Amino acid sequence: MAVCRVYTTQSLNSTSSISTSTKTNLDFHQKHVVFYSTSGKRSSKRGSSSTTTVITCSAGDSQTVVIGLAADSGCGKSTFMRRLTSVFGGAAEPPRGGNPDSNTVISDTTTVICLDDYHSLDRTGRKEKGVTALDPRANNFDLMYEQVKSIKDGIAVEKPIYNHVTGLLDPPELIKPPKIFVIEGLHPLYDERVRDLLDFSIYLDISNEVKFAWKIQRDMAERGHSLESIKASIEARKPDFDAYIDPQKQYADAVIEVLPTLLIPDDNEGKVLRVRLIMKEGVKYFNPVYLFDEGSTISWIPCGRKLTCSYPGIKFSYGPDTYFGDEVSVLEMDGQFDRLDELIYVESHLSSISTKFYGEVTQQMLKHADFPGSNNGTGLFQTIIGLKIRELYEQLVTSKVRAPVEAKA
Amino acid sequence: MAVCRVYTTQSLNSTSSISTSTKTNLDFHQKHVVFYSTSGKRSSKRGSSSTTTVITCSAGDSQTVVIGLAADSGCGKSTFMRRLTSVFGGAAEPPRGGNPDSNTVISDTTTVICLDDYHSLDRTGRKEKGVTALDPRANNFDLMYEQVKSIKDGIAVEKPIYNHVTGLLDPPELIKPPKIFVIEGLHPLYDERVRDLLDFSIYLDISNEVKFAWKIQRDMAERGHSLESIKASIEARKPDFDAYIDPQKQYADAVIEVLPTLLIPDDNEGKVLRVRLIMKEGVKYFNPVYLFDEGSTISWIPCGRKLTCSYPGIKFSYGPDTYFGDEVSVLEMDGQFDRLDELIYVESHLSSISTKFYGEVTQQMLKHADFPGSNNGTGLFQTIIGLKIRELYEQLVTSKVRAPVEAKA
Repeated sequence: MAVCRVYTTQSLNSTSSISTSTKTNLDFHQKHVVFYSTSGKRSSKRGSSSTTTVITCSAGDSQTVVIGLAADSGCGKSTFMRRLTSVFGGAAEPPRGGNPDSNTVISDTTTVICLDDYHSLDRTGRKEKGVTALDPRANNFDLMYEQVKSIKDGIAVEKPIYNHVTGLLDPPELIKPPKIFVIEGLHPLYDERVRDLLDFSIYLDISNEVKFAWKIQRDMAERGHSLESIKASIEARKPDFDAYIDPQKQYADAVIEVLPTLLIPDDNEGKVLRVRLIMKEGVKYFNPVYLFDEGSTISWIPCGRKLTCSYPGIKFSYGPDTYFGDEVSVLEMDGQFDRLDELIYVESHLSSISTKFYGEVTQQMLKHADFPGSNNGTGLFQTIIGLKIRELYEQLVTSKVRAPVEAKA
Repeated sequence: MAVCRVYTTQSLNSTSSISTSTKTNLDFHQKHVVFYSTSGKRSSKRGSSSTTTVITCSAGDSQTVVIGLAADSGCGKSTFMRRLTSVFGGAAEPPRGGNPDSNTVISDTTTVICLDDYHSLDRTGRKEKGVTALDPRANNFDLMYEQVKSIKDGIAVEKPIYNHVTGLLDPPELIKPPKIFVIEGLHPLYDERVRDLLDFSIYLDISNEVKFAWKIQRDMAERGHSLESIKASIEARKPDFDAYIDPQKQYADAVIEVLPTLLIPDDNEGKVLRVRLIMKEGVKYFNPVYLFDEGSTISWIPCGRKLTCSYPGIKFSYGPDTYFGDEVSVLEMDGQFDRLDELIYVESHLSSISTKFYGEVTQQMLKHADFPGSNNGTGLFQTIIGLKIRELYEQLVTSKVRAPVEAKA
């Protein structure tokens, strides 16, 4: 893990300039970074003269793996993040002693930041300019790129905070390079430069029908909104969503698609889900999960003589496909689990799930049985993707450690 | 194998009386059997005084396993039998020095008799009485039962011969108890007593559409019959077939159903076939074949990244079902094989196929690549059933040999 020293000095006139210098010391790389800080002022304005912070970090032999998670707001990203950090062990918490409205979650190994922090316009600013948060013009991709690159290079950054409560930009918080750095939000795959920094990317694709059913559940039942206002808010959001968010899925290494079940004819309750895990082929250190026979096309109803399922049962499908012109493998689960033995039974028939011991998926799912989606494909596939990311991380680190040894030999 | 001595004596007035006596000699059983012989007269009449044959057989420690194979005439029973005897090794031939029109085929281990030999009415007799060969009244089930029972008990019999060329009943031929005794024909499962003697039974169920396509192929293309005459012959046969032959399938341990493909919409050529192997659950020493996961419901299209298939491809299905109220497992293959590697690939994904080495199914299929159905499910499932019968035979023999040892222990 990187060790950093922080000191403050007078800044140059700069929007978000970053200068780095590197020197070798005892086989470790030392890097210096100078960058802009908003110095406690709640403001979205940039470019004015202000105090700068200089941080010296020893990147050591650590390797920061960068993961991007894209989805519309309220689509279960935080549940996914909790499942992911759980796979690595250790509790995930907001930064200690920092802004209580920070969007960041930190665990032993993983730091998850929310890309809303790169909003260049605060709530008032967006209203004035007539743009939504989905619009790239409301976001600072230059800073996003530079800071993600710094973290990947082992350099700590002072990341802005978008305060969801006030709708304002709060003073920045220090983010140190973790083992695994997750950028989650609306646009992790929008900017090509940011995209190229990602070691792995996931897009959570909730179908309109399910999104609508979920919003009704949450906003109508829990918040007392009217059906009309929910419909109107979805409709208002749709053009920007279709223009700027949805197209990102073509770049994702894995897409989790959430659709209405096909097991119940004409179902529109959105309770029983059909979830598809679309996995790109040829991604380094990512071997798609498969069912029984890699590369063939399979459907599997595990319910039968060994497993009894309540209505409407469970159906898995697996097979090769193309997705935006790319070769992919798709694993689909329609329906929901009734009991533990169903889950372990299903797990035992999936291959390439990157577990470290028999039943690890089931153990993880049971550990968080109270999380949304624990009885269906969203929870299952999020857990599996968590395990795949752990494997990817370990293989990336191993390849970096091995490389010099191999060079010497 | 049983060793028999044959001598002739004056018979009693009897249709088909059988008397047996048993004495123990050096731990082996000796049995005597007296039974009716038609004494060279081509006649279907019975009950008259005639010469009888007495045969003394030492059944030894051999075990005759009796297999029944039911199907309409011309439905590939002989191909099935050639595949079955091939599994056991050794060529299958008609009895040496006997009637050249004998319907019997003998190999080292297996004797296959045709149940047409138990016609009680010859062609003229049937015409006179206005009954078809499918009608039970044209068949002697008492004699069938008694002779099958004798063979099972290790006693040789003098079985009548129905001459398909002349349409007459020829003098009988001696049938010694083999290791595996197969009774194939129209009615192996019709008579409850005969049925109870069977260690395993198979019904070849050719759907009307396929039967029609095959008959057109054979009778029109090869024998110059008209389409109308083919249709008329099928129609004429249908009432008796439906009344006496078809109902037997409910008693079979395994049914091979041959249907038109579903891979080609509205196909009626009958060239690409969908073949279903229906396997009864709970049959001693017969463990149904399965695909990937025993007891669940699966479909599998092996064509994909590892295997390219020409149109219309191959689709397997597997799952539990009920068949005439019995629990069954069904394995289905739709489509046809292009090449060897497809077959070995498929074989490697089937479980409980009772092979003795990896690739034995493929080896058997290749050995008889010229047999009808070698590129589709009929050949595949016939071969697998042959292997299952071999296993059943070996387990039955082992259980008989083990029994006294276990009793002593």
